[in-house]
Amino acid sequence: MKTGIDAISFDVAKINLPVRTLAEARNIEPDKLEKGLGLLKMTLPDKHQDAVVFGANALTKLILENNINLKDIARIYVGTESGIDSSKPIASFVAALIEQKFGGETLAECDVVDFTFACIGGVDALQNCLDFIRLNPVKKAIVVTSDIAKYDLKSTGEYTQGAGAVAMLIAADPQIMTFENDWAVSNKGVFDFFKPYRSLSKSEITGNQNNENWFGNLEAEVEIHKDQPVFDGQYSNQCYMDRTRHAYFQFKKLKNTTATVYESWKSIIMHLPYAFQGRRMLSEIYALDSGQIALNTADPDYQNKLKEISKSEDYKSFVNEKLQPAEIASSLIGNLYTGSIFMGLLSALSHFEQKNEDLSGATFGFLAYGSGSKSKVFEGTIQPQWKTVLSKVKLFETLEQSFEMDFETYQKLHKKEQQSSVLSPKSEWVLDRIETEIPNLTGARYYKWID
Amino acid sequence: MKTGIDAISFDVAKINLPVRTLAEARNIEPDKLEKGLGLLKMTLPDKHQDAVVFGANALTKLILENNINLKDIARIYVGTESGIDSSKPIASFVAALIEQKFGGETLAECDVVDFTFACIGGVDALQNCLDFIRLNPVKKAIVVTSDIAKYDLKSTGEYTQGAGAVAMLIAADPQIMTFENDWAVSNKGVFDFFKPYRSLSKSEITGNQNNENWFGNLEAEVEIHKDQPVFDGQYSNQCYMDRTRHAYFQFKKLKNTTATVYESWKSIIMHLPYAFQGRRMLSEIYALDSGQIALNTADPDYQNKLKEISKSEDYKSFVNEKLQPAEIASSLIGNLYTGSIFMGLLSALSHFEQKNEDLSGATFGFLAYGSGSKSKVFEGTIQPQWKTVLSKVKLFETLEQSFEMDFETYQKLHKKEQQSSVLSPKSEWVLDRIETEIPNLTGARYYKWID
Repeated sequence: MKTGIDAISFDVAKINLPVRTLAEARNIEPDKLEKGLGLLKMTLPDKHQDAVVFGANALTKLILENNINLKDIARIYVGTESGIDSSKPIASFVAALIEQKFGGETLAECDVVDFTFACIGGVDALQNCLDFIRLNPVKKAIVVTSDIAKYDLKSTGEYTQGAGAVAMLIAADPQIMTFENDWAVSNKGVFDFFKPYRSLSKSEITGNQNNENWFGNLEAEVEIHKDQPVFDGQYSNQCYMDRTRHAYFQFKKLKNTTATVYESWKSIIMHLPYAFQGRRMLSEIYALDSGQIALNTADPDYQNKLKEISKSEDYKSFVNEKLQPAEIASSLIGNLYTGSIFMGLLSALSHFEQKNEDLSGATFGFLAYGSGSKSKVFEGTIQPQWKTVLSKVKLFETLEQSFEMDFETYQKLHKKEQQSSVLSPKSEWVLDRIETEIPNLTGARYYKWID
Repeated sequence: MKTGIDAISFDVAKINLPVRTLAEARNIEPDKLEKGLGLLKMTLPDKHQDAVVFGANALTKLILENNINLKDIARIYVGTESGIDSSKPIASFVAALIEQKFGGETLAECDVVDFTFACIGGVDALQNCLDFIRLNPVKKAIVVTSDIAKYDLKSTGEYTQGAGAVAMLIAADPQIMTFENDWAVSNKGVFDFFKPYRSLSKSEITGNQNNENWFGNLEAEVEIHKDQPVFDGQYSNQCYMDRTRHAYFQFKKLKNTTATVYESWKSIIMHLPYAFQGRRMLSEIYALDSGQIALNTADPDYQNKLKEISKSEDYKSFVNEKLQPAEIASSLIGNLYTGSIFMGLLSALSHFEQKNEDLSGATFGFLAYGSGSKSKVFEGTIQPQWKTVLSKVKLFETLEQSFEMDFETYQKLHKKEQQSSVLSPKSEWVLDRIETEIPNLTGARYYKWID
């Protein structure tokens, strides 16, 4: 009995800033971002949106487009690093909204929880749901990835921002893709990208040592939460390469093969913090597994050889064939953190559907990465019904509708100075209000569906 | 092939405040807390401790006491609601510390991730690890629960504080306890207890509307993280009763039995935010499943009948027999959030081990609860080797060594005014420092082992 992805849906922020506009404002050569990194647009959450909204929207679409009977859903597992509460998971909010829309207690026996590990939490949720379905084949599970990738204004991450969610139905005998039980893992605890609380001493804030009550905070240290990460881009690239390389060759061991594994993959789906990250990182694995070089990072010539190979015509045609289909959506959306790898899958599938190619039986390779750091490498096989399901998703058609905002609006939204929605919500969830008065409910978030 | 808990270990804060001391300072009748709620001591993290420290300590003990070969460990899954980073999981920190102590890259292929759902995230981690071992019986997994239950000074939760971790080795043919694949779930999205970011408008802080850069925060809203939850104790009790009751009767359906399920359980292990929460909440299930009353919450007499039953001699002896063994540790520690239910298990096992009772073959029932809200009900069966493994744990002996601090020290620690450790660390992990200078590493936490 096979298990895998039976249906897929998505929701991304509907407003965007062209990366060219940002580049000009920041005195960056636009071609460096557009042609060098593959960045065309970045999507940003509107005033009424947070990670719950994107997750609930993607799941609502998944349910409606696939006529899912909610009583069949045994679990909703969420991967996110944009949690809005340290205790109550995004999954609990999302399930409550689905009940709010589809009625009563339809998810009263559904298991819901959040997985946290930077951009790879959604892959962890997927793996565990596949195990669950293997053991309980009559049940169905849902994996939701939802994130907002926000970087400080004028920071080096600013042009990689994005926001949205992907939702997937996991079931036995799935229509889109099946997975075997080969999961290679590479793990190492590092600080390449993380989101710590920023500690401020109260004396710095108040200018005195009295540790007086400051807006209800009684401690001498105040911890600030920021959506923006602390990161070292170059070091994170190295971690990405080291972890994915290690996991890739572990995967070869699991498969017990000496063949060049990626040659068996029709498409390669990688975590894409920006569109061309995959192609910039993969040349080492490409060169190693084809025997063009031998692993020897101590050799001063190793990096030179790698650079040479990455500029070769062979590598370029390899990229065009196996990586480019997954990059298309990323160029138009930006980073989705946990959702990026699944958006890459959706991008590739949508690309082949548009080209009317028959993928049935093809194998896709996945190279997942989460900062901190961990990689997982695994593969999936396309199922005969994939196109029927994919035709409902309309990825590129939807992305074409994205609303382009001007730079001033972008800055106001970013600085939380924007007082109203940039785009009026329609057929979607909105964050309606956050409780501020009732002490026992301070911070409670209420959402509503706008027809 | 059976799967379950092969070994177990723990680490709780080594300093405590007698609940009697707190009661006197707060003008509460001590008996109300000691005899009414079962509270004797509450443990508090020392200056050098956080949720990573407790988790790493518990896991280090687990490894040393059971001679675990780290190469056998395929995953370390952490349940926590005391995360110190929105992206990098506690599991990643803990795994790195284990490598720091036990050498090199021993966990380089180990899968690590955090589960978040209030106090039930550890149970979710356990269930997923059991599934994993069922499918990969030659592998081993570790579940760690680590939390700090902190409540504001003078709040109604203040006397339920506690801090610590439990670590468990999950394996095939386990020595302590096996679990079947019957997991009943009850889920409903509510705000009974949660930990939202507290949003502050910058204009309130600075007194002007300029949205100027405030300690690196460029947004007009600043989000404060607090360990302390927002909660409504009475409402949360009702959610606890509703969810556990629903899950309990779902469990009966899964077992396809009309018998009084709890009668088959030697011990009942419940989530204990305070020692007597279980006995105060369970009387409804006790009365319903024995047929003493019928579920009818609309009947004004229903609550009266319940109260009567909860005061009956029958219920008292039921409590003493089936609930009390799991309460002992809670009275001496306080709330451990995700760890509470597993500390309850450890408490019961240690109690029976001290009494030299043979539990082999006995069944324990579990009623887990996480605010927000979700319950899971499941059961486990004690294995013949349980006592050999338990004899290493020394729960009550360790708790006896706890250092009693005075009220002034308690307040200084709580308000983060304490400048040095209350108790010098020995044979344990400490938070050594948090980076403040290097921009790309701001907030990075470094730990060290103290011999």
